[in-house]
Amino acid sequence: MKIDIMTLFPEMCETVLDTSIIGRARKAGKVELSCVNIRDFANNKHNKVDDAPFGGGMGMVMAAEPIYNCFNSLFDGETKPYLIYMSPKGTTFNQNKAVELSKKEHVVFLCGHYEGIDQRVIDEIVDEEISIGDYVLTGGEMPALVCADAICRILPGVLSDEVCFTEESHFAGLLEYPQYTRPAIWNDREVPSVLLSGNHAEIAKWRKEKAIEITYNRRPDILENAVLDKKEKKFLENYIKSKSE
Amino acid sequence: MKIDIMTLFPEMCETVLDTSIIGRARKAGKVELSCVNIRDFANNKHNKVDDAPFGGGMGMVMAAEPIYNCFNSLFDGETKPYLIYMSPKGTTFNQNKAVELSKKEHVVFLCGHYEGIDQRVIDEIVDEEISIGDYVLTGGEMPALVCADAICRILPGVLSDEVCFTEESHFAGLLEYPQYTRPAIWNDREVPSVLLSGNHAEIAKWRKEKAIEITYNRRPDILENAVLDKKEKKFLENYIKSKSE
Repeated sequence: MKIDIMTLFPEMCETVLDTSIIGRARKAGKVELSCVNIRDFANNKHNKVDDAPFGGGMGMVMAAEPIYNCFNSLFDGETKPYLIYMSPKGTTFNQNKAVELSKKEHVVFLCGHYEGIDQRVIDEIVDEEISIGDYVLTGGEMPALVCADAICRILPGVLSDEVCFTEESHFAGLLEYPQYTRPAIWNDREVPSVLLSGNHAEIAKWRKEKAIEITYNRRPDILENAVLDKKEKKFLENYIKSKSE
Repeated sequence: MKIDIMTLFPEMCETVLDTSIIGRARKAGKVELSCVNIRDFANNKHNKVDDAPFGGGMGMVMAAEPIYNCFNSLFDGETKPYLIYMSPKGTTFNQNKAVELSKKEHVVFLCGHYEGIDQRVIDEIVDEEISIGDYVLTGGEMPALVCADAICRILPGVLSDEVCFTEESHFAGLLEYPQYTRPAIWNDREVPSVLLSGNHAEIAKWRKEKAIEITYNRRPDILENAVLDKKEKKFLENYIKSKSE
């Protein structure tokens, strides 16, 4: 898979993309990631990429032409990549969208700044507008990097098979159970004794039940889609009952 | 206001914090931002910060002690800063939460990695767990930087007063209207003629109506809380009627 990020801050994006799991996936050739500077396509004396908005108002609007030329430089004119504009007006990103995008061959993220970008270039080339949440950010860079991270983790070979299995199927639909590591007693707090018991079936049961409790308390909205067997459903019923008493 | 980020990737975070509006606010002393490396508080030979989970399972869990010591280094022992753990289990971040956090004197973001961090240090020192959305990311760094960005924009003196005014009150509750800049004709696409008319009242009306249309089509869920006057409510009613015909 190939991912490009169109931005006015390519160095910042590069630094993030070179870190941690994405950095390793990139070096190992599991994903081809590039950052391209929209300013390099300004075609004017001062590399100006923005101008005052028609109709007046605060701030500056990013002009259509540099963005258009920048995008066209990313492919040979035949297979148009899937272009996503990171925008507060977009549909909200989630894990299903990450999975959907991870199946595409070539995705490009367009990062806006200032008071937005000229609507005509959005109408002309953008396939989809995506927001990462209901908060106001300085630009589209962080959102694009968030999406790139979520997508890269899903690509084959990026995470170990075992981690993939755990994440994707074992606790699908539930928030994660609490984790503990050495020492067994820290600041007078003990690790739950079941975790020291060596009884794998008991440990698995305890973890699943904790995950159900946490999900019920914090995100009841996602609990509906969780995969629970008969015993787990019964546990949830009893837990809800005990809470309401 | 003071914001600290506790992380295993301080250089990456620094680069992001030095960019764009946050970078300028930081240089101008509008906000005090620091990144602190949890690894510096490992107190063992190999600066090890993680260990295998009790009870078995994939991955590594970040140990309690380095995180605890790192946090304690950030204040004099008197006024405990407000500690936020960036976690998929947290409540979802939004603009109201950004405003709430921007009023605190000292906020610390704790970024996890691997399979999470020891639950006991969360129970001991964390005030709140926050998630930026329903997607799986590699670590808490990007989420912490997203929150820091959203908070910094709100701090007094970071954005110009005029931009603040526009963002906070003028179109409060609505998605933004489309923007256009020069040239007036681009790729055979014309700028809406009202924006070239010089009639400020007409322009303001057109923009508000476009904002209402876009919000209705894309995010009807936020339209309920939008501030609309009588004429604007009437416009919305007619628009809905025209769409259903």
